[in-house]
Amino acid sequence: MCELLGMNTRQPAAITFSFRGFAKRGGETGHHRDGWGIAFYEETGCRVFLDDLPACSSPLAAWVQNYPIKSRIVMAHIRKATQGAAGLANCHPFQREWQRKAWTFIHNGNLTGYAPLLDGTYRPIGQTDSELAFCALLQHLRERFPNDGMPDAIELAQAIHEAATGIAHFGNFNFLLSQGDLLFAYCTSKLHFVQRRAPFDRAQLVDEDVSIDLREINDHDDCMAIVATAPLTRNESWQKFEAGTLKLFEAGELRWQSSVKPVPYFAPAVDPSQ
Amino acid sequence: MCELLGMNTRQPAAITFSFRGFAKRGGETGHHRDGWGIAFYEETGCRVFLDDLPACSSPLAAWVQNYPIKSRIVMAHIRKATQGAAGLANCHPFQREWQRKAWTFIHNGNLTGYAPLLDGTYRPIGQTDSELAFCALLQHLRERFPNDGMPDAIELAQAIHEAATGIAHFGNFNFLLSQGDLLFAYCTSKLHFVQRRAPFDRAQLVDEDVSIDLREINDHDDCMAIVATAPLTRNESWQKFEAGTLKLFEAGELRWQSSVKPVPYFAPAVDPSQ
Repeated sequence: MCELLGMNTRQPAAITFSFRGFAKRGGETGHHRDGWGIAFYEETGCRVFLDDLPACSSPLAAWVQNYPIKSRIVMAHIRKATQGAAGLANCHPFQREWQRKAWTFIHNGNLTGYAPLLDGTYRPIGQTDSELAFCALLQHLRERFPNDGMPDAIELAQAIHEAATGIAHFGNFNFLLSQGDLLFAYCTSKLHFVQRRAPFDRAQLVDEDVSIDLREINDHDDCMAIVATAPLTRNESWQKFEAGTLKLFEAGELRWQSSVKPVPYFAPAVDPSQ
Repeated sequence: MCELLGMNTRQPAAITFSFRGFAKRGGETGHHRDGWGIAFYEETGCRVFLDDLPACSSPLAAWVQNYPIKSRIVMAHIRKATQGAAGLANCHPFQREWQRKAWTFIHNGNLTGYAPLLDGTYRPIGQTDSELAFCALLQHLRERFPNDGMPDAIELAQAIHEAATGIAHFGNFNFLLSQGDLLFAYCTSKLHFVQRRAPFDRAQLVDEDVSIDLREINDHDDCMAIVATAPLTRNESWQKFEAGTLKLFEAGELRWQSSVKPVPYFAPAVDPSQ
């Protein structure tokens, strides 16, 4: 399966990730060989790094993991292709503009028989169910909030939850979505989160596979939320998302959540990504 | 002023750029300190690297210039801010989807009093006149070609030329635009191009400031077009674009061009970028 990792901090923080470890998660080496990507929301804008090489052997991943970038929101994805060939156009995060913001999206799961009616405002460039769902989701938000200006965060979360619940009829749909200030996390099958406060330590977060250096965080009064497919540490109280839950994180804290159990249209399909 | 550099080759070629040199062009060191960016159209998709650090001291630029990426079209930009602060959101290339393709855009010049009526399909994320013009340009193409499917290349070039001529009323508008197969280059004041064929050599392309290693090109039957704000070599016949000219490059060759002298709305303004 794909792996999702998201982080939201109160203050922009220079955090380095170990992609080498992240890529090894969830299976033996080679399990997530179909590319990776990461979005950083920095003070002055958003940038996305993509690569179709396996994260464990990607020179770009090696560069990113050694270069601390100050961000409030980071979203990383390691890809194991289910729909859409390996290739840059199918690597997450996907990126689109809405309300003068750069929205990015990463997905874990597999949607079967999903064919939303797109009005053409957003169309997928690649061949994944994930980018298709992202386009449909943003189209839903445009229809729901046709006026210029970013809607209220809670109203936005409710609208995203509504759209996500509909899409979740078609299969496993765990995703992270952001526009730079807010981190939306939705789960149908597998997602966990933890909230942490200073003082931070590297040791507390290390497991065999993944390390995130939190000592580089700037502000000792900072706090942060981490969302990941599977818990990253053994000594913390990671909370599992209930199926059908959307959580909104802002300024490093859980601000709002809601649950609606998704109803599959079909008998539960065998999802090759799970 | 900003510097533009574009390249179109028949076969995907692994070409390395010297950003260090590119950043020094057009003035003394420090003249283009407001960031840089580059778009690579590779076999499996498009990716854009952005940085708000000066290209000459950017660790990411150092990485990019040492890592050969096989592409058919490359577009690079070094920024000297005229409108919009320094920052990632104002770095070129800008990127948007249309007709299921990733379009990218880089601009040199300065538009004064330019305030197009945007219907909301595309809105700028940053504060530059450049991104605003890019949004208006894509909106024009959507209106002109409302149906699904990429239009014929020449019709597309004509429509882009029409829109560009309108925008050029507001100031200097030299730009490169691509969707991965076609490279559109428009000039109101300063742009040059050269066409080259194998055998390629590094030496032939070196001047004091910029080097592009063409020996890494794969196919000895390949050909390529290079477009740049100023000629990159002294020993070749670079051709200056006439003001108001749009050129379409495809598969490494000039395929189509047209000229319409732009008429300024106002008395020629003093352009701080020139």
